[in-house]
Amino acid sequence: MSIDRTKIRWNGWGWAAHKDALGAREDIWAWLASELGMPSLLATPPRPLDDIPLPPPRLDADTRGELVAMLGPDRVRDDAYERAFHALGQSYHDLLRLRAGDLTLAPDAVLYPRGSDEVLALLAFCAERDVAVVPYGGGTSVVGGVSAAPGAFHSVVTLDLSGMDRLIDVDTAARTATAEAGIYGPALENALAAKGMTLGHFPQSFEFSTLGGWIAHRGAGQGSSRYGRAEDWLVGAKLATPKGLLDTNGFPGSSAGPQLNDVVLGSEGAFGIVTEATVRLHPQPGCHDYRGYLFRDFATGAAAIRAAVQDELPATMLRLSDAEETRFYRAYGAVGKKRGLKDRLAQMFLDTRGFDAKACALIAGFEGERPMVEASQKHFAAIAKRFGALSLGRGPGERWREGRFHGPYSRDPMMDRGLGVDTLETATRWSNIDALYAAVRGALDAAMRETAPRPGAHGVVLAHISHSYNDGASLYFTYIFPRALDDEIGQWRKIKTAASDAIAAHGGTISHHHGIGEDHLPWMAQEKGALGLEVLRAIKQALDPKGILNPGKLIP
Amino acid sequence: MSIDRTKIRWNGWGWAAHKDALGAREDIWAWLASELGMPSLLATPPRPLDDIPLPPPRLDADTRGELVAMLGPDRVRDDAYERAFHALGQSYHDLLRLRAGDLTLAPDAVLYPRGSDEVLALLAFCAERDVAVVPYGGGTSVVGGVSAAPGAFHSVVTLDLSGMDRLIDVDTAARTATAEAGIYGPALENALAAKGMTLGHFPQSFEFSTLGGWIAHRGAGQGSSRYGRAEDWLVGAKLATPKGLLDTNGFPGSSAGPQLNDVVLGSEGAFGIVTEATVRLHPQPGCHDYRGYLFRDFATGAAAIRAAVQDELPATMLRLSDAEETRFYRAYGAVGKKRGLKDRLAQMFLDTRGFDAKACALIAGFEGERPMVEASQKHFAAIAKRFGALSLGRGPGERWREGRFHGPYSRDPMMDRGLGVDTLETATRWSNIDALYAAVRGALDAAMRETAPRPGAHGVVLAHISHSYNDGASLYFTYIFPRALDDEIGQWRKIKTAASDAIAAHGGTISHHHGIGEDHLPWMAQEKGALGLEVLRAIKQALDPKGILNPGKLIP
Repeated sequence: MSIDRTKIRWNGWGWAAHKDALGAREDIWAWLASELGMPSLLATPPRPLDDIPLPPPRLDADTRGELVAMLGPDRVRDDAYERAFHALGQSYHDLLRLRAGDLTLAPDAVLYPRGSDEVLALLAFCAERDVAVVPYGGGTSVVGGVSAAPGAFHSVVTLDLSGMDRLIDVDTAARTATAEAGIYGPALENALAAKGMTLGHFPQSFEFSTLGGWIAHRGAGQGSSRYGRAEDWLVGAKLATPKGLLDTNGFPGSSAGPQLNDVVLGSEGAFGIVTEATVRLHPQPGCHDYRGYLFRDFATGAAAIRAAVQDELPATMLRLSDAEETRFYRAYGAVGKKRGLKDRLAQMFLDTRGFDAKACALIAGFEGERPMVEASQKHFAAIAKRFGALSLGRGPGERWREGRFHGPYSRDPMMDRGLGVDTLETATRWSNIDALYAAVRGALDAAMRETAPRPGAHGVVLAHISHSYNDGASLYFTYIFPRALDDEIGQWRKIKTAASDAIAAHGGTISHHHGIGEDHLPWMAQEKGALGLEVLRAIKQALDPKGILNPGKLIP
Repeated sequence: MSIDRTKIRWNGWGWAAHKDALGAREDIWAWLASELGMPSLLATPPRPLDDIPLPPPRLDADTRGELVAMLGPDRVRDDAYERAFHALGQSYHDLLRLRAGDLTLAPDAVLYPRGSDEVLALLAFCAERDVAVVPYGGGTSVVGGVSAAPGAFHSVVTLDLSGMDRLIDVDTAARTATAEAGIYGPALENALAAKGMTLGHFPQSFEFSTLGGWIAHRGAGQGSSRYGRAEDWLVGAKLATPKGLLDTNGFPGSSAGPQLNDVVLGSEGAFGIVTEATVRLHPQPGCHDYRGYLFRDFATGAAAIRAAVQDELPATMLRLSDAEETRFYRAYGAVGKKRGLKDRLAQMFLDTRGFDAKACALIAGFEGERPMVEASQKHFAAIAKRFGALSLGRGPGERWREGRFHGPYSRDPMMDRGLGVDTLETATRWSNIDALYAAVRGALDAAMRETAPRPGAHGVVLAHISHSYNDGASLYFTYIFPRALDDEIGQWRKIKTAASDAIAAHGGTISHHHGIGEDHLPWMAQEKGALGLEVLRAIKQALDPKGILNPGKLIP
């Protein structure tokens, strides 16, 4: 296994040994309390695993024995740590339950298969024995995609794919690679880098997520403008199902009917388990250039992104924070620092240029061969200037790159202090961005005020455009709020529902790159339509007639 | 209706009034006979419609009456011309039957609906009455996609969508347009051009094919490197099915499970009928630059294309003829022309530079804003030079553009003279192109020799790379052969089978942009796998439980 599970936190993000950089920063916590209209923050530590009673495993001895006969005792695990580790994913709802010690959904056993044939055999066996199966790659789903729910079945096993992490082949002429689905982001990129190549798929979860997971939830990395979404880079996949292996056998282009890759992408373990994939590569970029800009307001920044994308500018990333996100991170960075003459002069400069509280920061990133990167960077700088932006140089760009995977680490210390923090995202056409943005921000703000634990307390909503397309863009919202400790899950559900209803009512997709899982199920009927859901149900019926696969995800 | 059906040939290509430029060129026909090892060509005119008995319409009077009540008498047609016109498409197999007067598959009536609601009502009615339904856009399928086969049903109607040809909306910010599916290529492009935009989808059938057809067969235009394949430019579609309307409601990007657009694309009228679509646009290109190059051999030309594509060169088209196609068109162009001193000097120049019978012509096309077009053209010229190519200037590029939609017109005069001409296409990874090319060429050549009507007669095989991708390219084959008049259809089937078996055995897709229809059905099981076919059947069952839609296409 490429990452030792005991070295990752079972009830939070990332390496167990990761040092909490915010732990001793009382000034930060005081500032955050004031941001949220709270007099101070609380101590809400998670319950330790030793202290949590786990439900007894429900696999009967004969079934467990057969599994051990198939895989050997080391690859059939049902100790408390393994079961707790695989109970849930990394959604806010998951974290609330893990930290509270609710391990109702711990799987009855965790299986570590090696290779498509073993997965196929396990699925056939579980279908025969009426055991539900939850696939688990890196377990980083933030929408409840890996919770070990048995559905209508008596027992449930989790298939942890981390033992399937081989890079099988690299075709340098076609620039494709074939790998097992359980390979982690860093292991895949390191193996490709040794051949001068990259997949370029860097979601924020990169360090702890797997190739199979990226495909199963139809993800997009931070640099998807250059490297593509999963549906762009997937050439072909092997999907192990209770009915056998579906090998999508992809081509560079094909009009031989609907393409089966499209059934694998976004299937979230409900149609089958991705065991291998062939993906399109790029050469390792010769250089990169990430810079910051400041726009007068969100609409102007969005217009600049639209102009750049529609000008066919080959950007890797154009990331525009809204005014509140810009202000929040600037204030956060200033906590505990003395405000000197230089800062005051800088502020005066901004004031005279008309950059007020509505100002929005943008990071423009370019990767590839130097001439293209330089030309594109200059082209974007010209567009930014045309839209009245101020160039902030490479500093903000490099700082963003350094911290690009670190965001999730700050969630746990916030959770330790009575705070809630969640994210959600959507996408819509350019002509609809402003209306959708306003509606979701408004819904989040109102719901956080309504559910605040005390009068005057409220949340903050930070938003950015993270991915852009010719016809539209995504909107990513982060919201932080004081938890209502008497009904944490109810509070989350109210906030999530308000925002998701606003998305559905204003022409957004319920997810741009997180997926459906359990959390977005209530909005699938509106997004896909009744007949669309029938299509998804028909596909599931064909591949998983008993419905043992990942119960309660994807299809309501 | 945007094109009067009586002005189009019912048993051949294009405008009935189109003048046969080859008619009087006896020198061309003599040359072609010698190319095929034939002493001379035969006269094999098609059977005139007046002379062909049509099967009596099988709709009962009550059903016909109800249809007339729904649409009015003008939009329910069953005169001989309408039925003959809609009996078959434009495949070689179709033309053999039409010219021989085999109208067994004439539909019992042709319906002209207007709008999604009428199509939905007709589908519900036909499902209730057990009447098969064949959708018909421009009818240009070259794989048997529109033949009015009743399948297991007693009667069959064709739904001609040409009355649904409105451009409904253009969103200039998102650069998208929504149109009814029956709109013809030129009507759509003219309406978009009035707003400074283009879809840029220009298949060879452009003048006589429709938006809905492009989506239903998952097509790719000649400039798809720039403008994308149907799956790239489709934002959302309305699919009318016997179970109701599936509105795919697309987004710029979404990870809300499998995307329903992907079920519409390539569905070939077997899942439903595309009634409306929203598509991604580009600005009208400010300029274009199409030029010719000569490479020493096919492998070198292919390597140059691969280098250009993998260098991210924004080409609109890179089209590499193989040596035989290069030779054939050069010889064709020289027929009847005196070979002067200039020609001899040019040949000497080529000889001394090592361009012999293996030389291959390439057309490199660029469209867009002038600076990008000029830079890209220069970049490609540098790549071509690096691979030892000779620049032929703009002449060949402009000639290709002028004739880009004319190819199909030359088929009818060949068919009139005892010749067969068919095309097929595939795609594979770069690392597999040479092997696939050799296998298909060999199979076609052998099968045409085997089925030749006399000893020594044979066919010619012309091939080109027409579309290229980061990971691979398409191969397009045109083959011309003397017909075995005693068993024309058997001869075609043998040749088609030999080539298709070679494609399937050598890692190609059975179609890169023509689709499946009836002709490619036998190779679907290998391409999709048994379980893949089950998925397609399950989707069909969900949308068209009785199976009334386009019987005998797409799914074996």
